[in-house]
Amino acid sequence: MAKYGYQKIVELSFEDAVVEVKKVLKDQGFGVLSEIDVQKKMKEKLDKDMDEYLILGACNPSFAFKALQFEQEIGLLLPCNVIVYKKGTDVVVSAIIPSVAMAFVDNDALKNIAQDAEEKLKIAIDNL
Amino acid sequence: MAKYGYQKIVELSFEDAVVEVKKVLKDQGFGVLSEIDVQKKMKEKLDKDMDEYLILGACNPSFAFKALQFEQEIGLLLPCNVIVYKKGTDVVVSAIIPSVAMAFVDNDALKNIAQDAEEKLKIAIDNL
Repeated sequence: MAKYGYQKIVELSFEDAVVEVKKVLKDQGFGVLSEIDVQKKMKEKLDKDMDEYLILGACNPSFAFKALQFEQEIGLLLPCNVIVYKKGTDVVVSAIIPSVAMAFVDNDALKNIAQDAEEKLKIAIDNL
Repeated sequence: MAKYGYQKIVELSFEDAVVEVKKVLKDQGFGVLSEIDVQKKMKEKLDKDMDEYLILGACNPSFAFKALQFEQEIGLLLPCNVIVYKKGTDVVVSAIIPSVAMAFVDNDALKNIAQDAEEKLKIAIDNL
């Protein structure tokens, strides 16, 4: 298992997992600002087949706004990705771990916000 | 300047910069899969005012497909963000530097792809 994602195998269909992920994220104050259907894009652009794979860009506006005040370039690392994908017959949901993904950002105020976001993202995944 | 972005101040209006960025990215094989108008979102969600700020999710499908074969969770770090924002009166364009943003990924095959993507992103920014 990769160490920058907080994962859970869910007992749901892929489609239901996507619906549920959006709910648990919303409960923690994260809206989904972008949605990339990787399976569809790969078919479209490369004519390659792959299993279902969705990248959701989750954003807690208050955290994001504060983060941008502390460091204007932090948008390069926003929003927080949450992915839903098939692994064999399993449906996996995984959220980026901000303290890992932003570890190279040299800004203590930002690290605190990343920590807060991480806590909420983990609660969301745990609530699946 | 933050060290995870490859930046350029452009002599263009914000709107023209967005158009040009999409062109130079396309020339290097990157499509824009997501587009987040941060200024608009912050107004909508928090009623906060801020300068123009756009997050573009740029993706080179061949690189992304290869990366996903090597490490299924890498979607947590895709697409590559390119941001366009106002800094005072300047319009800044900045692309994520994959070798920094993916430095914690422990996978040599992936690091090579990140290096290739980085080269092309830097050419795109240089071509602005």
